[in-house]
Amino acid sequence: MKLSIEKNKFLNAISVVSKAISNKPSISTSGCVLLDATKGYIRIFANNEDMAIQGIVEGEIIEEGMVGVDARLLNDIVRKIPDGNISIFFNEKEDDDNIKVVIESNNIKFDISGKNGYLFNDLPEIERDKRLTISQYALKDIIRRTIFCTSVSAVNKVLEGELLVIKNGILRVEAIEQSRVAIRQIEINNSETDERVIIKAASLNELIKIISDDTEAMIDMYFMNDNVVFEFDDYIIVMRLIEGNFFDSSNLKYNDYITKVEVNKKNLFDCLDRTTLIAKEGDKRSVKFIISNNNLNVSVVSQIGSINENIEIIKEGEDMEINFNPKFFIDALKAIDDENVVFYLIGKKFPCFIRKEDTYNYVILPVLG
Amino acid sequence: MKLSIEKNKFLNAISVVSKAISNKPSISTSGCVLLDATKGYIRIFANNEDMAIQGIVEGEIIEEGMVGVDARLLNDIVRKIPDGNISIFFNEKEDDDNIKVVIESNNIKFDISGKNGYLFNDLPEIERDKRLTISQYALKDIIRRTIFCTSVSAVNKVLEGELLVIKNGILRVEAIEQSRVAIRQIEINNSETDERVIIKAASLNELIKIISDDTEAMIDMYFMNDNVVFEFDDYIIVMRLIEGNFFDSSNLKYNDYITKVEVNKKNLFDCLDRTTLIAKEGDKRSVKFIISNNNLNVSVVSQIGSINENIEIIKEGEDMEINFNPKFFIDALKAIDDENVVFYLIGKKFPCFIRKEDTYNYVILPVLG
Repeated sequence: MKLSIEKNKFLNAISVVSKAISNKPSISTSGCVLLDATKGYIRIFANNEDMAIQGIVEGEIIEEGMVGVDARLLNDIVRKIPDGNISIFFNEKEDDDNIKVVIESNNIKFDISGKNGYLFNDLPEIERDKRLTISQYALKDIIRRTIFCTSVSAVNKVLEGELLVIKNGILRVEAIEQSRVAIRQIEINNSETDERVIIKAASLNELIKIISDDTEAMIDMYFMNDNVVFEFDDYIIVMRLIEGNFFDSSNLKYNDYITKVEVNKKNLFDCLDRTTLIAKEGDKRSVKFIISNNNLNVSVVSQIGSINENIEIIKEGEDMEINFNPKFFIDALKAIDDENVVFYLIGKKFPCFIRKEDTYNYVILPVLG
Repeated sequence: MKLSIEKNKFLNAISVVSKAISNKPSISTSGCVLLDATKGYIRIFANNEDMAIQGIVEGEIIEEGMVGVDARLLNDIVRKIPDGNISIFFNEKEDDDNIKVVIESNNIKFDISGKNGYLFNDLPEIERDKRLTISQYALKDIIRRTIFCTSVSAVNKVLEGELLVIKNGILRVEAIEQSRVAIRQIEINNSETDERVIIKAASLNELIKIISDDTEAMIDMYFMNDNVVFEFDDYIIVMRLIEGNFFDSSNLKYNDYITKVEVNKKNLFDCLDRTTLIAKEGDKRSVKFIISNNNLNVSVVSQIGSINENIEIIKEGEDMEINFNPKFFIDALKAIDDENVVFYLIGKKFPCFIRKEDTYNYVILPVLG
């Protein structure tokens, strides 16, 4: 194998594909990306148990072949080589278990060890009949504003995922944790399919690091039986779907609320941010909301000290006293861009709904005490 | 005690003075700064075993008094309070061991616990007869470019310090580690004294975080028997001197060099930076320099792989083969701004001198192997 690739294009592709490397030491290709020049183009590939990424990178194939190399070392080497073309090669006749890969640029020559390319699995065959095309920005945005509400490691694997529902020209994303739910929806123009899939949050979290903030740049999603495929620019990302029953959010009804509060988002956010100085997590303290007339009184008392604040609100309905984990409220407010937010209370032992019709619904259970 | 202080001035003073708080749990004022309004002005103060900092902050004293509060909590609270005046007070009649300090701003009220102000030591009496006035930038710069060569924790406490020598209109700073030495000097205009003091590097490291990058802003240093004092803006910093004999750098003689090499600094730096990918520290590998004619060949072989590079140089004297810890060379080159550097070699078992007359001298021992 012998390739010549421009440094910055190479580096970009390595860094995108590296998001799918496996870190399980038991896997022979752990930590490695595959460089494959056997198909007439140069592709970089990595996969783990949840996702696979392939990137096509421009360059010259001087001699065909493929080899796996440590992704991090390759990234560091390419990054620290000056701009220009990088030559990467090995001698096919070498012992398969001990491939010496040479990375060269002008007066710089690195040797590193490589792994036989046949050790890598490949992408599955991709079926492109069920498709959703959406802007990379919109996809990134809706994931970013819900993903904080997923669990990293749950007994029920469904809780490690986000639910994506595509129906009637709407994409809805739902995430749930023990004491809170995040739901967002956007209109989509360009869907050939109705779908309901659960995708691992950790994989989506890597996706949103890769895709662009550009509202003009599009991404195609394809829905297969066991996988969802993301295709954009020169990349294909395949994620395994999580099987199981997701929480039914249609049970979350706010219509019977007894108190409705409208408040300036920044005022509430800054106040709750201050309460975290007194209600430290190790302390398991909650903040107390006392809603009376057009005033929201927020207070905490702990070993550290106390805080007491008053915020102006517009209230409809009854006065109310209710306790929350301030972090849950803060996370929801962070995910909202509006100047004012409205929340609905059903009772001091029932969920609070921070919601905007047809846009978002952040549901938080109160702390009982 | 009752004070009113503008938020940003207060925050700035807290953050400067906090650099001297003690973190030893055995000390009763551990983690605390003192707010003192008993002398007709508001001062903030903290000290540990090595240094003390006092900051004067503008504000209104409504009622005299003093109290110690947790520096980090106070910093966080003041930072998270909106811009404007902050009121801070406690009731003198309260139990001395359980002072409740109130921090208030508009509709926000914090209570935190305070410590009796009498638990704090105070600044020593400051003698101002031996003085050096220097720009904050110049002082910061000379410390920054030598301090990496000190030890954090050494049996010989002298090695935890930097030597400052003031003589004949020159300030020279020296730092030494097991296998390397850093020496820099600058001309000073405004010195009333000849001095030779050793100051703890950890304290100087805090100082350079505080002082300005402005070449116009000046700082006064005063030399006392056991302390050195830094005075600037509204701050006084006192550092305890380290007693002992510093390494005598006049023994470091490069004049008998057999090889002199001039090289582009960036080329050498980038090359050595790449070698660290192969010569990982855990590996204890050194880089090999082969100097022959006008070429410097740099190479490393390790379990990770190998690197081999050639760099153009201008050489005087003999060819030479010599091994170095790349980190030591990198640190020295980082501390040099010149486009080209010159280094002098005496032999493969003798120190290498990266030096510029009357400016710097970075001395590195080779790795024998």
